[in-house]
Amino acid sequence: METLTHRAGRTPDQLVRPVVRSIEPYEWEESNEALARRFGLDPRDVLRFDMNTAPAPPTALDEALAHVGRERRINEYFDPHYARLTEAIAAYNGVSTSNILIGAGADEVVAVIVAAFIEPGGRAAMLLPTFPMCRLYTEQHGGTVAAVPYDEGFQGPLNALIEAAQAAQLVFLCNPNNPSGTAFTLAEVERLVAAAPGGVIVDEAYFEYHGQTALPLIERYPNLIVVRTFSKAFGMAGARVGYCLAAPAMIGLLNRLRPPNSVTYMSALLAEAMLGRLADVQAAAAATVLQREALRGSLRGLGLHVWPSRGNFLLARLGGADGARRAEGVHQTLLRRGLVLRGYRGHLRLGDCLRMTVRTPADNARLLAELGTALADHD
Amino acid sequence: METLTHRAGRTPDQLVRPVVRSIEPYEWEESNEALARRFGLDPRDVLRFDMNTAPAPPTALDEALAHVGRERRINEYFDPHYARLTEAIAAYNGVSTSNILIGAGADEVVAVIVAAFIEPGGRAAMLLPTFPMCRLYTEQHGGTVAAVPYDEGFQGPLNALIEAAQAAQLVFLCNPNNPSGTAFTLAEVERLVAAAPGGVIVDEAYFEYHGQTALPLIERYPNLIVVRTFSKAFGMAGARVGYCLAAPAMIGLLNRLRPPNSVTYMSALLAEAMLGRLADVQAAAAATVLQREALRGSLRGLGLHVWPSRGNFLLARLGGADGARRAEGVHQTLLRRGLVLRGYRGHLRLGDCLRMTVRTPADNARLLAELGTALADHD
Repeated sequence: METLTHRAGRTPDQLVRPVVRSIEPYEWEESNEALARRFGLDPRDVLRFDMNTAPAPPTALDEALAHVGRERRINEYFDPHYARLTEAIAAYNGVSTSNILIGAGADEVVAVIVAAFIEPGGRAAMLLPTFPMCRLYTEQHGGTVAAVPYDEGFQGPLNALIEAAQAAQLVFLCNPNNPSGTAFTLAEVERLVAAAPGGVIVDEAYFEYHGQTALPLIERYPNLIVVRTFSKAFGMAGARVGYCLAAPAMIGLLNRLRPPNSVTYMSALLAEAMLGRLADVQAAAAATVLQREALRGSLRGLGLHVWPSRGNFLLARLGGADGARRAEGVHQTLLRRGLVLRGYRGHLRLGDCLRMTVRTPADNARLLAELGTALADHD
Repeated sequence: METLTHRAGRTPDQLVRPVVRSIEPYEWEESNEALARRFGLDPRDVLRFDMNTAPAPPTALDEALAHVGRERRINEYFDPHYARLTEAIAAYNGVSTSNILIGAGADEVVAVIVAAFIEPGGRAAMLLPTFPMCRLYTEQHGGTVAAVPYDEGFQGPLNALIEAAQAAQLVFLCNPNNPSGTAFTLAEVERLVAAAPGGVIVDEAYFEYHGQTALPLIERYPNLIVVRTFSKAFGMAGARVGYCLAAPAMIGLLNRLRPPNSVTYMSALLAEAMLGRLADVQAAAAATVLQREALRGSLRGLGLHVWPSRGNFLLARLGGADGARRAEGVHQTLLRRGLVLRGYRGHLRLGDCLRMTVRTPADNARLLAELGTALADHD
């Protein structure tokens, strides 16, 4: 195949750091286009119940697009300090701009935090299953994960996590948790933060649905970093804006590792515009919470166990002796009709579960109807 | 100030990795708004000659904005594979999609490459002065930089770089170089790539102005990674899209470290649209090259030494016994009028130099007029 004239004659995997060879790459979700091609559908008929995104774009979208079209400045680099957006986020959260670090989605913010705490041989403690990026970034830096399994009810073995935290440079807690939707109380989060000798990330991606936050604790706990995103309740997953909140000294250190200009001009303008329309964000989140409770009731009516959720999604267990087989069958049947749920094929704890995002009343009604039929077919 | 109730009572800088404390943060450029405030100007009157960006937005801007407004899908995550954009980039470069990795600007692509090659104690070799991000990322990973100073004519001591490369995991070469605009020939680049035992990044941010590329070498050299960007000739600095080209096995390894979804929906659509309008990109680049030569002639007419440039910018030396003082004076005078050049105050080699981006004929004429006056005033 290739003629290697490279002096050392080394192949790429002999050139990179040994740890890169052992990293398991993240299995990225299929795009609507790829799914549609696979199942012979129109991409516009694909409905994502698997990504925990809002069912509608932000109400300021047209205003922001018009702004970008009018200013015609996309050829220039945007303010690397994101000064106006930082001020708007500070006002939204009632903190100082020195408490804030902004990144291209919560993903990048978590990446910066992990880079600040984890070096080869380091350790991050977390409950599993949870949002996978913190584990991935830890392994990329040559660190290992001290995994504490959630218990059956997803109440979380908090004491076990606190114990694991004693030998960890970093603890990751997603609250409310993904995929369960369950949440720890503020007192529980404080117990963890107070007991951890290292840094603690509390990922509050679903804050606007939950309404509770560990933010007040940053005044007393220099090791606490609260992560937020515009990808969920703000309806901006495709725009990549996230941020974290922590003590100014911690933000100052994280800033040294922050890429200077990763948030786009258009995304920053859109986020700013939506922080000027908080009533819209809150109304959309409240509607989703109402829908969530209605959908949970209906799913329980179909005989599923559904965990109480504080997010914009529900985790449902089919149960029974062949629950995993049925879950996989239902998952595939719905997929063929363009309804994409999150399945857990082969997962030790969640094999008989399906996770679904709460969308509009019409979308949810369609999900329920198809799900009812599929469950009956796979009985 | 703060009451630390954190168990270990450690301050943030005792919590993070020791290397974070020693990292010198990148000094980010001031935004137009901040500059305008400082000098009592209207932000719209600030002209950036310091960022090497194109003078106009991409011709497909309105088309892409309309597309985003029509599709209304910004609430969903975008295709994490960037499948359509990857195919368009492959066609543009005459390579396979397996030769391509896309990121949020060349910055993120370089960050991924450095993460793949540099671990604590590692070393990156590079000529200095050059684009600073590779040095920053290397230091963030606990690596050190083996710096080889450019010679006076910026012809580059290639042999010295090859020597430094022998003990380095990674070599970084910006070609054409920033800030000089000077370029190595393909044969020179090949000599370096063939002799380096580790990886070699050839940053071709200014490729569309230069017209020459090391790309054909990726078929024979598994250690070569060519980096490109949409931030320069494509007029998309505010949209954050970059990519790299390498052997499929190398791309596969880099993919393990790539964040899954860092390029925004809107930016990917815009990049795709511009790859469908290459004639526009090439015409804009050709106009800039013509302007560059005209501007170089005029600057030499003002008595400055100006290096021959292959990019969209020029490096000019004021020279003389008090050149550094004059350069600083001219820099400040122009800044107060809203013309932002890149100065090098305190720089060992470039203290008496100014770098300026080539813009539109009208912008360049204004620059020349103001520069002529300022030079006379600071004589």
